[in-house]
Amino acid sequence: MNIDMIRAAAERGKHHIRRTPLLFSEPLNDVTGRQIFVKAEALQHTGSFKYRGAFSALSLFNPAQKEAGVLAFSSGNHAQGIALAARQHGIKAVIIMPADAPEVKIQNTKALGAEVITYDRDREDRDALGADLAGSRGLTLVKPFDEPLVIAGQGTTGLEIAHQAKSHGVSKADVLVCCGGGGLSSGIALALAHEAPDMRVMPCEPQGFEDVMRSLESGKRERNTQTSGSLCDAIVTPSPGEITFPILKKHCDRGFAVSDEEALTAMAYAFKYLKLVLEPGGAVALATALFRKNELSSNPSIVVASGGNVDGEVFAKALAKLDTV
Amino acid sequence: MNIDMIRAAAERGKHHIRRTPLLFSEPLNDVTGRQIFVKAEALQHTGSFKYRGAFSALSLFNPAQKEAGVLAFSSGNHAQGIALAARQHGIKAVIIMPADAPEVKIQNTKALGAEVITYDRDREDRDALGADLAGSRGLTLVKPFDEPLVIAGQGTTGLEIAHQAKSHGVSKADVLVCCGGGGLSSGIALALAHEAPDMRVMPCEPQGFEDVMRSLESGKRERNTQTSGSLCDAIVTPSPGEITFPILKKHCDRGFAVSDEEALTAMAYAFKYLKLVLEPGGAVALATALFRKNELSSNPSIVVASGGNVDGEVFAKALAKLDTV
Repeated sequence: MNIDMIRAAAERGKHHIRRTPLLFSEPLNDVTGRQIFVKAEALQHTGSFKYRGAFSALSLFNPAQKEAGVLAFSSGNHAQGIALAARQHGIKAVIIMPADAPEVKIQNTKALGAEVITYDRDREDRDALGADLAGSRGLTLVKPFDEPLVIAGQGTTGLEIAHQAKSHGVSKADVLVCCGGGGLSSGIALALAHEAPDMRVMPCEPQGFEDVMRSLESGKRERNTQTSGSLCDAIVTPSPGEITFPILKKHCDRGFAVSDEEALTAMAYAFKYLKLVLEPGGAVALATALFRKNELSSNPSIVVASGGNVDGEVFAKALAKLDTV
Repeated sequence: MNIDMIRAAAERGKHHIRRTPLLFSEPLNDVTGRQIFVKAEALQHTGSFKYRGAFSALSLFNPAQKEAGVLAFSSGNHAQGIALAARQHGIKAVIIMPADAPEVKIQNTKALGAEVITYDRDREDRDALGADLAGSRGLTLVKPFDEPLVIAGQGTTGLEIAHQAKSHGVSKADVLVCCGGGGLSSGIALALAHEAPDMRVMPCEPQGFEDVMRSLESGKRERNTQTSGSLCDAIVTPSPGEITFPILKKHCDRGFAVSDEEALTAMAYAFKYLKLVLEPGGAVALATALFRKNELSSNPSIVVASGGNVDGEVFAKALAKLDTV
């Protein structure tokens, strides 16, 4: 992995990847006690940053790969990113999703023309299912985070952050990033190491699933004991990736973890002050800025709001927090 | 009113007014049957386009006006725009709001440092209240739409639409605009007449409050018989303005009107596909694209999503429409 791969991904995607805005709100700054810039990746095509990595990977498929099709595993954001990028490249997409994935994610993936195969998390072996499909149909698997071309695509977010922050006169800041397997965090960290070396990425995770935070503390890849039970479905992963972790270790500062309740409250703040729909897993970085403000030192801080694919019932829980914000 | 006033407002506001993105979603295009671009003014500072006009007007206050302060009447979006622009210019703001305005609008206006005076729509005379205040305190009134500097500010939206559409290769389109008194519609129409003369503005209103639609049909300023009773509080006005109507008449195509239910459903589409929080009055143009699609001819069409200041209870009504979208 290197910066040239990120720059090349930006070049390949320049007419496709949306340059999402860097938002801010004076009343929100009053709440957080510092200037906060919010990189609104929920506004990316398909509602999350995942489209960047998907486009990056699929744009380099060779003719035989295109002909045979692409396979992905995903609880929904990588699924939609792959589905749209595949549609744009005329590639058949097959996506394996857990049957209990958010409804909006399953619907939107199907609406983009992908074949969705659901499985029961408790009773079926996802990897065996995928291996069967890949073998019988010759599909190419695109992994959600531990894949260089995907990390390169996610890193384009970091190139934009560096450039947009500079236009506000900002070159030094904590950059809080919602983190699952570390594809987005490592891509941004690598981009910023070259484009804005005084910025420091801090991965943010759900409490109980803070494998990256603990791995950064111990210096080796730690695992979560549980693999479900958070509202933040998009960023629940067993451990940092083999490829992402060395990058995180080299370039990131400490990690943070927030509760589901804090993530829901951050969604309410985004609703009230930014008019942005966030999903719980896309709101943990903003929650960190709101609820760990005494542990942050930079002013301004930059928050990546990584996704907004959320069902109405979960969003209603965030709306119920409005009287506290 | 002329294009130079709009260009001057853009110049004065260039480091303040946010250039909001022109969003689109392939699944949304599949639903509307044509390419739809959405100008996301809910992402403007204070959550609506109103900040543009407020900044335009307040940036030309003279020292005596600045010293004395500004007065505005508003159900909430103009209020917040004035409050923020006043704060940025060091001007004291006094805002007269109906007591039944959406709670988020009252809270956000106060959070921006304005003095909010609420009145009872049925029992108190708003204009007398305002005249008293303006007289006793020497405040300068900035009207919400029938004021050239305000129209000039709103027109900056049109300059951006022309430029952003061009970057997508689009120079000809219907431009659907949420319309109350016509400040935004007239400003955009005037800007487009010069910058993209093949685009045609179509004002969109709530059913029962379609004064502009009827006025465009009859050629003279018509009045609504009712002045309350719509969820679309932001765009319920008695009649088109004295200044705005001649501009609308000269430059606009026909108008449209949609129901509250259609506006709520459009909010659900914006939630699902754009990750954008819209208020009912900010969603009527998108509702027109969704529910009057057979009466539109251009492809692409451009929709202005003018605001997103909505209470949780009303947004919950939109979420309840998700199973229909």
